[in-house]
Amino acid sequence: MTEPGSAYRKQLEAALAFMNEGDDFLVVSHVQPDGDAISSTVVVGWLLGKLGKRYVLLNESDLPSRLRFLTLADTIQHFDEQAPPFEFTRVISIDCADYKRIGTVSSSFPPGTKLLNIDHHPTNDSFGSVNVIRSDAAATVEILYDLIEHAGIALDRDAATAIYTGLMTDTGGFRYANTTPHVMSIAAELLKLGVKGNDLADHLLEKMTRPQLMLLQRGLSRLSFSEDGKIGWLYITPADLEETGADPEDLEGLVNYARNIDGTEVGMLFKGTQDGQTKVSLRSAGRIDVAAVAQSFGGGGHVRAAGCRLELGLPEAMPKVVDAVRRVLV
Amino acid sequence: MTEPGSAYRKQLEAALAFMNEGDDFLVVSHVQPDGDAISSTVVVGWLLGKLGKRYVLLNESDLPSRLRFLTLADTIQHFDEQAPPFEFTRVISIDCADYKRIGTVSSSFPPGTKLLNIDHHPTNDSFGSVNVIRSDAAATVEILYDLIEHAGIALDRDAATAIYTGLMTDTGGFRYANTTPHVMSIAAELLKLGVKGNDLADHLLEKMTRPQLMLLQRGLSRLSFSEDGKIGWLYITPADLEETGADPEDLEGLVNYARNIDGTEVGMLFKGTQDGQTKVSLRSAGRIDVAAVAQSFGGGGHVRAAGCRLELGLPEAMPKVVDAVRRVLV
Repeated sequence: MTEPGSAYRKQLEAALAFMNEGDDFLVVSHVQPDGDAISSTVVVGWLLGKLGKRYVLLNESDLPSRLRFLTLADTIQHFDEQAPPFEFTRVISIDCADYKRIGTVSSSFPPGTKLLNIDHHPTNDSFGSVNVIRSDAAATVEILYDLIEHAGIALDRDAATAIYTGLMTDTGGFRYANTTPHVMSIAAELLKLGVKGNDLADHLLEKMTRPQLMLLQRGLSRLSFSEDGKIGWLYITPADLEETGADPEDLEGLVNYARNIDGTEVGMLFKGTQDGQTKVSLRSAGRIDVAAVAQSFGGGGHVRAAGCRLELGLPEAMPKVVDAVRRVLV
Repeated sequence: MTEPGSAYRKQLEAALAFMNEGDDFLVVSHVQPDGDAISSTVVVGWLLGKLGKRYVLLNESDLPSRLRFLTLADTIQHFDEQAPPFEFTRVISIDCADYKRIGTVSSSFPPGTKLLNIDHHPTNDSFGSVNVIRSDAAATVEILYDLIEHAGIALDRDAATAIYTGLMTDTGGFRYANTTPHVMSIAAELLKLGVKGNDLADHLLEKMTRPQLMLLQRGLSRLSFSEDGKIGWLYITPADLEETGADPEDLEGLVNYARNIDGTEVGMLFKGTQDGQTKVSLRSAGRIDVAAVAQSFGGGGHVRAAGCRLELGLPEAMPKVVDAVRRVLV
């Protein structure tokens, strides 16, 4: 896996040394944590436990309920600025591209705290005293798998399930372009350890809450297309969120229904906010650079997935952005 | 992969011998072919080509348009009973659980034609003169991967793409319980050969035609639940198919929207037919045996996926089947 003497192997060794040399760790990930953030958090906790270390798992945001089943997830503490500081001498930051992503939790770090930064985001600015940055990893759990293998520690089914969860959520169920041979090989090894991939897929990717369903019904009923079918868009109002009892994260994936229709080059989701603004998610089928469109409205992102915010209500914002996409399509 | 001397290895050797000893082959799969059937067909054609054999690929049904991109797919001939018989001395049947699944194509086989039967269905009745039946394989392409590896022939990207397609479609995008470590290891090897897994996932699993979208809109707008939320169902009328221009296969997957809602134990899709009958697809989240319910209406299937047909219109059939599920849920 990791060639002896390679730069990556040296990073893994430094990370292990960082863990072995400390006694009390604070393990943090980013605000509004996703599957990979929480999976990585519990896997680092699991590893520290194997190494006989004391640790506290912490996050600024609440644990997404769908991830409660993960081993150690119930030990992740919710950060409260009023609470007394935890006893720790070292911090491990996981899946955070920069210091700010940790959120207000970082206010509890004494100055000069030694920090191990493990992440897979290409924009990571190496803010740790030790850094393991691997932008070709699909998920941070992929790096942790290599780390645990490198440490010669045998995974059990619980830890394997957490790693599978991180891989599955960050690759869209082994569908995104980051699904490398290495990802699939790790998945094969994890399944050998008894991971129930089918149950995880059902739970993490297939299941929908009733509020999500209601949002999907409303969104789909409003799906509109340009005359040539190359642009598809739908919208969600603040009233939709209120009336369905949905959370903003329930909107995730909705934009794909617009993008995934045959012939559609660009799919968009417009979300009206309470204060009369409009947030736009843009997705490209591949040919069009939607980041450029988003940038023209002060937003940004990637070629195939971008976003922006307009200080306009839905009725004004929608034709404006649709027109901008239309001009790029010509 | 295959231990020397194992029964499976002997089967693979017999299959290779069957190919090596003949000159002219007819390669057939089942009627209404799915991703695995067509992928397997072209992979066998590819292998016969590598072995320097002549072959004709044949299917009773039309090629699903989504699978046209596969190598050799444009050489699959559509069976026409009026056409002159092809010149062949041996038949290879792929992904067919019994002789009948081949369809009317089998009428063109002279009596006593030697037939190699390669399949992964547990109900396969070994109707071939040589049989390679592997019910623990997720897809027939999985067996073909082993066969090609056993033959010591190097896959190219086109053949690898076809095998990935069969694996991806028969495992629901690496989500079903048949997604074994062996499947994931093969997927890793295929990606190494340059298979574009992301493009395949988009094309085969994510994309929706406009008629499919319109069916989804109509179906979702009618999704109903029992008071306790444990039963969810939706229906599609013959007029829906006509007005949207959808094919019956566009209904595939629609039933999952009913099953996948949090708290739903059984999801059902009711399809009204032109002659006033009702076809029912039943899906279980795991606890309830829907095959038993289907059987009580003369249908059948598996514990988690079953179907039946009632000689009643939608308004009469729906409450009858919902009631039957309700009784099982008590």
